[in-house]
Amino acid sequence: MGDFTQIRYAVTDNIATITLYRPDKMNAFTNVMMAELIAAFDQIDADDDVRAVIVTGEGERAFCAGADLTPDDGAEVFADGSEVESLSDTRVRDGGGMVTLRIFECKKPVIGAINGAAVGIGATMQLPMDFRLASKSARFGFVFARRGIVPEAASSWFLPRLVGMQQALEWCMTGRVFGADEALAGGLVRSVHDAEDLMPAAIALAREIADNTAPVSIALTRAMLWRLSASDHPMEAHKIDSRAIYRRSRSGDAQEGIASFLEKRTPSYPDGVASDMPDFYPWWEKAEYR
Amino acid sequence: MGDFTQIRYAVTDNIATITLYRPDKMNAFTNVMMAELIAAFDQIDADDDVRAVIVTGEGERAFCAGADLTPDDGAEVFADGSEVESLSDTRVRDGGGMVTLRIFECKKPVIGAINGAAVGIGATMQLPMDFRLASKSARFGFVFARRGIVPEAASSWFLPRLVGMQQALEWCMTGRVFGADEALAGGLVRSVHDAEDLMPAAIALAREIADNTAPVSIALTRAMLWRLSASDHPMEAHKIDSRAIYRRSRSGDAQEGIASFLEKRTPSYPDGVASDMPDFYPWWEKAEYR
Amino acid sequence: MGDFTQIRYAVTDNIATITLYRPDKMNAFTNVMMAELIAAFDQIDADDDVRAVIVTGEGERAFCAGADLTPDDGAEVFADGSEVESLSDTRVRDGGGMVTLRIFECKKPVIGAINGAAVGIGATMQLPMDFRLASKSARFGFVFARRGIVPEAASSWFLPRLVGMQQALEWCMTGRVFGADEALAGGLVRSVHDAEDLMPAAIALAREIADNTAPVSIALTRAMLWRLSASDHPMEAHKIDSRAIYRRSRSGDAQEGIASFLEKRTPSYPDGVASDMPDFYPWWEKAEYR
Repeated sequence: MGDFTQIRYAVTDNIATITLYRPDKMNAFTNVMMAELIAAFDQIDADDDVRAVIVTGEGERAFCAGADLTPDDGAEVFADGSEVESLSDTRVRDGGGMVTLRIFECKKPVIGAINGAAVGIGATMQLPMDFRLASKSARFGFVFARRGIVPEAASSWFLPRLVGMQQALEWCMTGRVFGADEALAGGLVRSVHDAEDLMPAAIALAREIADNTAPVSIALTRAMLWRLSASDHPMEAHKIDSRAIYRRSRSGDAQEGIASFLEKRTPSYPDGVASDMPDFYPWWEKAEYR
Repeated sequence: MGDFTQIRYAVTDNIATITLYRPDKMNAFTNVMMAELIAAFDQIDADDDVRAVIVTGEGERAFCAGADLTPDDGAEVFADGSEVESLSDTRVRDGGGMVTLRIFECKKPVIGAINGAAVGIGATMQLPMDFRLASKSARFGFVFARRGIVPEAASSWFLPRLVGMQQALEWCMTGRVFGADEALAGGLVRSVHDAEDLMPAAIALAREIADNTAPVSIALTRAMLWRLSASDHPMEAHKIDSRAIYRRSRSGDAQEGIASFLEKRTPSYPDGVASDMPDFYPWWEKAEYR
Repeated sequence: MGDFTQIRYAVTDNIATITLYRPDKMNAFTNVMMAELIAAFDQIDADDDVRAVIVTGEGERAFCAGADLTPDDGAEVFADGSEVESLSDTRVRDGGGMVTLRIFECKKPVIGAINGAAVGIGATMQLPMDFRLASKSARFGFVFARRGIVPEAASSWFLPRLVGMQQALEWCMTGRVFGADEALAGGLVRSVHDAEDLMPAAIALAREIADNTAPVSIALTRAMLWRLSASDHPMEAHKIDSRAIYRRSRSGDAQEGIASFLEKRTPSYPDGVASDMPDFYPWWEKAEYR
């Protein structure tokens, strides 16, 4: 864990906390931060001790102020800098999207604790997280059109799913920076908190999930909701959840779930996601970048 | 209609009411109830006297308290109990999904009058209904992850369409039971009523549709909204609604719709869904379970 | 611009205003109006001086009272009136859908300023616009089922994206006419204004976009949000936005976006949509009507 230089990573009581950590740069995003975030999520999925993830930013000013545009640090955020021959060159790949697609694949619930300014990739990075909690001083900006570029990090797929088309269009077309109240009213964040209450609220939500639910159930639920809701017909969901109900209802987790419920006690589920995912998971072909 | 043992079915003034009827078991769901619900919806689609459907639960305690887990009644809710050789065995099929897919296919508007506890399949069964009205004492729970299983009944497809991803994830990942107010704020139910006002409100909504709209128009509208909104491009909707407008604008219903509007009187539409659906309906291939 | 007979078209300070103009007919929709709207949007996309579009209706009574059903003016709104041999005859094509698909393709932000009654195609015509602002006296009605027909203009695709399924179903199944407050509460309009404040508010929103954002960025953003959000997986968005970020971050617009931001001045972007769209645009095959 000491390997990370631009994030901090810690696990306490089954909750992993990732802290974007470039406090003198408002935690601006770089290629290094990208790689470290992906590595942290790999670690999280492999570690059954982790039941939930919180992502926040160091300090009170910023969650993440966007891509670092200063030449020495971030000039190659958008590509590796060498010449590419065509747009099908897989080196032409947005770094923000590599992070959001990794979070999309995560088997654990992911909670954003948005502690300050969240602009550009600082805003779009949050979208594949399951929950966004904001401090009163948080600010958000999908500012791309004001910089001559476009929404990235696959945000054109994620944002309308969270807030509807009209709100997504308004934030992306005006590019304006807005506060936590507007984010709450628009459905981007689930709750707003005083600065000192933000992490406790995020931890309480992580705790509620970690203490009561089965890890394999959560990993399946997360993949099912994000993926199956995007299909054309509910039959696809029926196929997957029929298999999932069949397998999971015969698991030790289901026995423990029912027993702990009837006995009104905290459950202790035997299965972990590192080794006990059912045989039909993943049910999808890995989406390839071409 | 006397054939049903775990539901009650009645038609009054063109409104069918299905009542989940196992009052001593909090109307818990069984394979018998599943089969009876499907049969009731078959009857509804075949009966042109039925213009709208209300689904409610017997008593004040529960709409439906979930799958009956007691061995003698419900052990085979998730499968037929015999050994299956593989997950492609079509006997591995979630019973809740068979009900929600049948409601999805229904040609009439379906109104849930949620009179009490609605947990597990009691919550997910409501999602393919067009409207959910709740009594103040109603409670809801997508509790699957707390039982070691997963959201079923194709709810991973339906729920995000109704309430957005963030809310769907929160209810399914925490598995918490919540009240009518949270259901209203989150967009799951359209309105909350005192217990004695619930059925009158559901009937008033059914009446508004039945008294003013053309049955074939409603059947087409229902299929178009649920199905065409899930396609990748609006052209698919344009293809279908172009045919529908062409055929329907030449129908007796359209003449009656315009005449009754100009004459400011209640319409009396000649066409019924049992025999007068246009030739391009259904425009889809039946989705097969594999 | 003098060629239009049923709409008015004017461009002031980079904002185009289209006014539905049949004041003695409550701006009811005809085949002529359809053709003029499509021609106006063609003109808008070809004219780099236009940075945003406002669509409104003449007078205070109506935005658009629906399809003109009087025989001499509008009998052929739904088709060309000649005999068709089959529903695959491309003359069986809903005129409202031809307008909404054209607006869907537009490269500029489109703002509806809904000044009065908006019924039938008057309501569905608004859905592919990016924003809807309403006067307090505006009324809306998806009245199709009350006329014996069905929702048209691809509204079954657009409406649920804007307001969710439950609200879309309620408005389309009851066919009731409702006011600006219900439209706001249900998410159909973004804001409600006194009659005299409606156009100033629409202009202010158009101004905010036109003064601060890059035209090519807006055209790409508009296409990305509407189209990529409808795909099955975020990878499709990642593919497109990776190319877009790569190309756009090397553009003069990106230099100007960053420079004007750092210098805290109004930007002046060099690229226009008529000739400077990146080589991968459009990335889709044109959807064909069959």
